[in-house]
Formats: sequence, C-alpha cells, structure tokens
Amino acid sequence: MLGANRYGKSDVRLVKVTRGETTHELRDLVVDVALEGDFEAAHVEGDNTGLLATDTMRNTVYALARTHPLDSLEAFGAALVERFLRAGPTVTAAHVRIAEHPWSRLTAHSFQRGSGGTRVALVSGPELRYEAGIEDLLVLKTTGSGWAGFHRDEYTTLPETGDRILATIVTARWEYARASGESTWAGVRDTVLESFGDHYSPSVQFTLHHMGQAVLDRFAEIERIHFSLPNRHHLLFDLERFGLDNPNAIFHSTTEPYGLIEGTVER
Amino acid sequence: MLGANRYGKSDVRLVKVTRGETTHELRDLVVDVALEGDFEAAHVEGDNTGLLATDTMRNTVYALARTHPLDSLEAFGAALVERFLRAGPTVTAAHVRIAEHPWSRLTAHSFQRGSGGTRVALVSGPELRYEAGIEDLLVLKTTGSGWAGFHRDEYTTLPETGDRILATIVTARWEYARASGESTWAGVRDTVLESFGDHYSPSVQFTLHHMGQAVLDRFAEIERIHFSLPNRHHLLFDLERFGLDNPNAIFHSTTEPYGLIEGTVER
Amino acid sequence: MLGANRYGKSDVRLVKVTRGETTHELRDLVVDVALEGDFEAAHVEGDNTGLLATDTMRNTVYALARTHPLDSLEAFGAALVERFLRAGPTVTAAHVRIAEHPWSRLTAHSFQRGSGGTRVALVSGPELRYEAGIEDLLVLKTTGSGWAGFHRDEYTTLPETGDRILATIVTARWEYARASGESTWAGVRDTVLESFGDHYSPSVQFTLHHMGQAVLDRFAEIERIHFSLPNRHHLLFDLERFGLDNPNAIFHSTTEPYGLIEGTVER
Amino acid sequence: MLGANRYGKSDVRLVKVTRGETTHELRDLVVDVALEGDFEAAHVEGDNTGLLATDTMRNTVYALARTHPLDSLEAFGAALVERFLRAGPTVTAAHVRIAEHPWSRLTAHSFQRGSGGTRVALVSGPELRYEAGIEDLLVLKTTGSGWAGFHRDEYTTLPETGDRILATIVTARWEYARASGESTWAGVRDTVLESFGDHYSPSVQFTLHHMGQAVLDRFAEIERIHFSLPNRHHLLFDLERFGLDNPNAIFHSTTEPYGLIEGTVER
Repeated sequence: MLGANRYGKSDVRLVKVTRGETTHELRDLVVDVALEGDFEAAHVEGDNTGLLATDTMRNTVYALARTHPLDSLEAFGAALVERFLRAGPTVTAAHVRIAEHPWSRLTAHSFQRGSGGTRVALVSGPELRYEAGIEDLLVLKTTGSGWAGFHRDEYTTLPETGDRILATIVTARWEYARASGESTWAGVRDTVLESFGDHYSPSVQFTLHHMGQAVLDRFAEIERIHFSLPNRHHLLFDLERFGLDNPNAIFHSTTEPYGLIEGTVER
Repeated sequence: MLGANRYGKSDVRLVKVTRGETTHELRDLVVDVALEGDFEAAHVEGDNTGLLATDTMRNTVYALARTHPLDSLEAFGAALVERFLRAGPTVTAAHVRIAEHPWSRLTAHSFQRGSGGTRVALVSGPELRYEAGIEDLLVLKTTGSGWAGFHRDEYTTLPETGDRILATIVTARWEYARASGESTWAGVRDTVLESFGDHYSPSVQFTLHHMGQAVLDRFAEIERIHFSLPNRHHLLFDLERFGLDNPNAIFHSTTEPYGLIEGTVER
Repeated sequence: MLGANRYGKSDVRLVKVTRGETTHELRDLVVDVALEGDFEAAHVEGDNTGLLATDTMRNTVYALARTHPLDSLEAFGAALVERFLRAGPTVTAAHVRIAEHPWSRLTAHSFQRGSGGTRVALVSGPELRYEAGIEDLLVLKTTGSGWAGFHRDEYTTLPETGDRILATIVTARWEYARASGESTWAGVRDTVLESFGDHYSPSVQFTLHHMGQAVLDRFAEIERIHFSLPNRHHLLFDLERFGLDNPNAIFHSTTEPYGLIEGTVER
Repeated sequence: MLGANRYGKSDVRLVKVTRGETTHELRDLVVDVALEGDFEAAHVEGDNTGLLATDTMRNTVYALARTHPLDSLEAFGAALVERFLRAGPTVTAAHVRIAEHPWSRLTAHSFQRGSGGTRVALVSGPELRYEAGIEDLLVLKTTGSGWAGFHRDEYTTLPETGDRILATIVTARWEYARASGESTWAGVRDTVLESFGDHYSPSVQFTLHHMGQAVLDRFAEIERIHFSLPNRHHLLFDLERFGLDNPNAIFHSTTEPYGLIEGTVER
C-alpha cells in the first residue's frame, strides 16, 4: 500500500537581475518545490497523467520569476504555491523553499559574496503558511562563556570552565502570522547576532533561549523560533608539557564530534 | 517560553577492531546521541545540574563499545539508549543513530572501502523502537526506464521518452517489529538492488513503489519502508547540430536541478 | 606583462552507453580540457579571434565521444588532444584529464557505484604523453603497522607503538612509455591493494616505497609512480580512566589534522 | 629508487585569542607543514631515526603560536620554517602554508564569519621566500561583460553576447620581495575587487590581465601575480517558449561544466 508521498524539483538555481536607472539589484536564489496529491496511479499502475513533470516545475520557477517583481521572497513563494496548486491536476498541497545567497554591493553593477548567513523562506498552501530561516551563520565569542555545574558520572572527564570560546553555526527557523519576511528577516538576523554577544553564556542551551527571547521580544509577529546550534568545540591546547602556560590563548578548533543543541522558544 | 528541545553529541567516530584467531573484524561507525528531558533550568536559569555533558556522551560511546560485542548495531544502540536513560538525571527519551561505513576485506587484516551504501541504525527509548536505513546507494540503469504520458501545461517543454537513463542515490528507512537489523539489513539492500533493475520503470514513483513492495514481500518483520530518491538526470546531448545521431548513447549527467521523489510503502 | 597562461573547460560530465547484443557497457567520465598557446591579444587587447570558446570544447568532447569507441580512456584523450591542437587557432599544447567513476554491474543493464577508487587518465600533446592515476582509494589495515624509533625533541609527546591502525586514501600517478592505460590500470590498482596489506609497515614512508616497488616490479612499461598518502589517524581511545583496558580495540578516527606523505618511486 | 619526496602535517587548526585591555583579537588559522630532506632510510630500510613525527609538527605549531605575537602571518610562518629546519635531523627545506578564515567583529569579544576571501601565506626556507594568496573570493558583475568575436568551428554553437553576467571565484597568488604580507594583503584584495568592477570585460582573460596590472601598478613590492578564475556560467534562461522576453533578467546559474582561466601577470 502506498503511504505518504510527495515529489518535486530541488536545487533550481535562479538569478534575477533588476536593472534600475543607475544600479542593479541582484537576487541569487535556490528554489525547491515539493507537491502532495493523489499520485497513486503513477506509483501503482504506471499512469503518469496525474503528474506534472519536475522539468515543468523548473520552467515555471523561471517563467514566474520574469513577471513577478521578486520584491519579497515570501510573495514569490506564495505565487509559486498558488500556481502549482492550480497546475498539478491532483495536487492538494504545495511546498516551496527559497534560499538566498548573500551578496554585498561593490559598485552599481558588481558584487562580492556577503556574510551574515543564508536567508531561507518557506511557503506552503493551499492555506498559506510562511516560515523564514537563517542558515550558515557562523558566530564565535572569545570570552563570556563557560560550562560548569553540570551532572557528573563515571564517564565524565571534562573539567569545568568559566571562560571558553563559544562557536556555533546558527540555523534558525520561525513562523510568521503573515508574509512579513522581507521586512523582518534582517532584523531577526541582527537580533540573533546582538543577543549572541550580549550576555554571559553558562551553556549553549541558555544562549539558545536568550536569543529566542530577544527575537520574540522585538518581533510581535513571530510566534515561535527554533534554533539548531552545533557546538563547534575549541579545545584549550595543553602547552604545560612544553613549559608554557595557556591563559585561554591557544585553541585547537575541531569539527567532530560536536555537541548539537536544538530547541524552540515560543510565546 | 521554552518549547520542544533536545541536545546531544553528533559525529562520534568509533572504530572497533575485533581480533579473531586468524582474521580481524572491523566496524567503522559514526554515532549520534540526542536526549530529551526536563532541561528547562539550564535554558532559563543557567542551572546545569540536570545536564549530562555531551563530552560525557562521547566517552560513554567509546566505553560501552569496549565491553559490548558490537555483533549487532541495533543491540549496541539499545545499550546506549538504556545507559543514557539512566545516566541523564532528567532524561525522558534517548535517540541513538549509528551509521556504518562499508569496508570490504582484502586480507585477514586489511580492507578497502566497500560499496553498497552506508548502513544506518536508529534506536530510541524508553520504549525501544528500531529503524534501519540505507544511505548513499548509487544505482543506474541504462535502459528499461521511460517518462511519458505525463500532464502537460503551458510551461511543459520536456519531450516524452520510452528509453532513458535512470540514476538515483537511494536513501531508505524502515521500521522493525524487533531488533532484527543485523540479519536483515544486507537482505533489504540486496532486494532494493535487484528490484531496481528487474522491471520497466515508467517513473521514479513506480520504481519506488515497486522496490518497496519487493522489500515488504520478502521481509515479514518490516511494516513500512520509506524512500527518498533524487532523480539524477542524464540528458541526451544534442548532437544533430554536428551532423551526428545520438541513439541513447551520449549523455550529459547533471547534479542540479534534480527531481526528488519521496514516499512510503506500507502494509 | 603576460606570463604563463592557459584556459579550458572543466567538469564536463560525459556518460556513454555502448549497447551490446545482450549487455550494456557504461563509462561515466569527467573531462577537463586546458589549452596553451598565444593568447596575448585576448588578455591585453580584448581581441578574442584567437580563442576557441570553452563551450566549444564541451561540445567537442560530446561529439568526439559519439564516434570514438571509447575502448581506451587514453586513446580518447589522445583524440581530444589532437583535435584541440588543430582546432585552436594559436594553440601550442593541449592537456586532457579524464576521471572515471567506478560502477559495478548488477544486471545486463543496471549498475551500482563501485569501489576501488577513481581512475584518472591524463594525455597531453603535441608530443603525446600519457599519465594514469588512482584517486579516492581508501584502505585500512588493523594491524601490521607501527611507528617507533623516530626522532624526538622537546615538542614530542607521541608514544611509540608497534601495533596501530594504518588508514589512508591513496592518490597515485604514473607515467607510461605508451598508451597502455586500458590494460594495466586495474593491474596497478590491484598491486597497490595487495602490497598495502602484505608487509609490516614501520611508517607510511616505508609502505609508500614498498607499494611503488611492487608496481615497478610488475609493470615494465611504468617508469615512475608518485603517491600522495594522507595518514588518516586512528587514535587509541583512553579507557583506563573508566577502569577498562584497550588492547588495540577501540579507536577514535579523525579527519584533521592529518599527516601527508608524498613521494616518487622510479627506476 | 626513491625519487622526490616530502612529508608533513596538514590541517592543523589553530585559533589564537589575543586579549587587549578592552577588545580581543582573533586569528583563526589552518596550518600545513611539509618538510624535504634525506628520508631515504625511512623509505627503504624502515629506519625512522631521521624523521620528526608529524604529531611533533602539530605540537610545534601550537607551542610557537603561544610565544609568537602572530602580528604577521608571514613572520609566524618564517618562525615555523626556521624551527623545522633546525628540528628535523636531516631536513633541507621546509614549507609552511597558513590559511586564515575571515571573521568580522560584532563586539569587543564576539565575531561573525566575514567575507572577502580566505587569506593565504606561504613561507619556505632555508632561503626565505614569501608568497601570499587569496582563495574563495566570490565576485559577480551583472553587466559590463561580454563574449564575442571568438573563433568558431563546426562544434561552435554559442551565440555572441555584449552583455552577460560574469561570476568567478578568485584564487590569486603573488610573490613578495620581502615579508610585507601583513600590510599589503588587504590592499591587494581591495585592488582585485575594484579592478574587477571598473572596466568592460570582453573575456575572463582580459579581466585577469587587467586585475593583475592594477595590482602590479599599486604594489611595487609584488613581482608577479597568478590568478585562477573559474567562469561560473550564468545562462540566460529561454523564456520565449512561454511568450516572455528575457532582457538579461532571468539566469540559470550553473556549477558544471565551468571555464577555467589561469594566468600570470608579471613585470
């Protein structure tokens, strides 16, 4: 028996240049489309009449990008969702994910890859729902972070510390009451950056909650925010063996294993 | 307010060598641990007394691997789940994921990286649940696959075909009634490989359902199986422009965009 | 002033299916082309009349693959080199690199990704020169390897060992007197695999030399072979802290930092 | 017979925090060490007495980072080179490569990953030579670039254009007369960014030469600069099929295949 299923097109790489009188605007997007519906005939009988080709989905993304102003990722996502709900003969739900690579302006027409994380917008329908997100936002603080007072058992060897490096790659996702992504995304990102650095962090968990609170305090339209925070450990390198001290100066940064702290802060 | 949350250690890379009289056995594993529980004090008040350090989780993985025979990934996962349920002072649920890299034997003591996909075992508790999976299993068929009769709209340009290359990277996951992973994993993998090649495929969806059926037919203990199948498109290269035909011989393989077909087959 | 320069097309992904009476043959290739010549007008004056477009190079790869039997990567590479030497109006040298992904046969028309490393063929002209290579060949031995007697200074903390895991990802490259790649590649690969496991290794350096000698002993047409061998360290995990011994059983595998041993063995 | 050979440690990940009165400075480095010398006894006889362990090299990097001010990557590299020339009993040449990940300051003690490319410093000895480099510098211009007047043959299908997107990931490397890396690196990077955008580009080759000239004009201490410029093609998506024009607005960005243009500009 066929259970839950969906299909679509992923990694549609779309760049739109909007030519103003003196300067150009650039949007560098990766679009994923996924459709749900009654696709049983295709799965069981090999009857494709109910399927929109994923190649058609790709074409649709580029065609709609031509006429849509693309002034808001969420609005563009909603236009795609509405189109796919109409276009797929048996489609009952459509999900669009748009990731935007950051570019920072050099001149009126030239750009370099920016920092500050990848922006993500998710739209699904028929009842339109909007989520936004940040990915690949690397942050690090050189002090103002510790890890102490934790539970110890027979396998615990880690010493306590009141001063360590805290480094993480923020992935965040939040829901909007409405499609306000375009105006608030940079504000949420900046709030995350500020609140990451503005407090003493006794744990990644505490910082997660603190950043979530800061976002909810500032943005009334956000109901809840979810964070996924890998703890990119920076280990104090043991220099005593060489007759040297190490007053939180020399660290070995590691990629694996890593702690992974995930949680939601909500109203 | 703190919502759902969890934390743990990821990418714990464990290699265990079991030394038989004449030959060595090798298990090359990557273990992820995630715990749920009452961690509110840590998030809100900075009180870590309820938290087991993720470094302790790592130590625990290596320590338990020493005494556990590791004859079954599922049994090892269950031992870890039980340990973490006891060890975390406020833990209410534990999730362990174990991925195994394949090695194929060269001699009694030497190995080369094998093929056939990465094996995955997932165990969670307190009520023990077992899932198994395959990742990174690349398969391709040079014929016996088509794509025709699909819905067409004004954005559809793709021609129909009755003979194409079908290539995908299988990700599968299935649930067991009990911890029978060790004995059935290779059987499921082989069934996927066989059923991928044994039929005419009118769509990736049909092949997904066909492979799922083959697994359920053969393994009574499996209740449902989920597949995620990226369609790694191989496009016929247009050679007519150069006065050459192309009878399904010369293809341009692409990585993006790609179709993504996902679905569950269940009893 | 313009110094040395070259240009070309990289990552041309070509799949050729050769349809025999009962079974299909598959070659899954990635081709890189680089041309040298008198390109100064393009660099300095913006005069492109001497440049073959890299898009044309791509087309040429697919077109020549149609008529060439592709029974030998080296022969196909030589055909491309000769074509580009004629086609580029000012070209004086052409370099073609072909990497082949391994597939292993499941049925007459279906395949799974194989193991045993990526095959590489390099051809350059006008005076045709052939090199072959292996990449991504992961090998590991669970014993028969040590590291002792090395020089110690004030920064040396590593204990000596007579029994460790040795793991590496072999990259090899060798020159042929003639285009004998098709017949000898698998033989060289097998010789590397055999000689990796057949001796006690006091160092990666010794194993490098030993494998090189084995290849030169067996293949008279090979003048020299170069290896690049990252030492993928597997560290014995310290279990004494938990009251457990660790008789070379439980290892922590690491990706960074890694030793890198490179050298050539020649006649 | 043993030919050319070298060995060392790669991917030593070093983070140094320098604590000023009010703000912290951060250097996030990846160090590679490679040594040349008389290592024949190790290769041929298994005699390791002439080898410094690569683990010792790692320790040395961390130990020297403690006492060295690390105010200049080139000076730190030279200190490492000099140390390894003394420490390796038979070492005749040492090569140190240091890559620095960019961070941009958020507060006195917190940082986010910056943009502008990875800085690279290479130092070798005994006669000290310095090279510097940029990697991963993504730049794009939305106009002011074309590709026309190129040589056409029977495999040429690409239309000419006087207005396209030009995108590349700059890798550059240059030699200094002396260790002036610390003061000039950002200047070279900024010159590359400026000169990328300040001219009409008839080809990547022309832009390569133009950027090289700009660097040599501004920095008298640089003798030559080498660029490796992948042409990350942005293809105009064909919208005519859907009754839409496409006045250089909607592009499909691709990763493969890509043009690769490499060259040196020198005095």
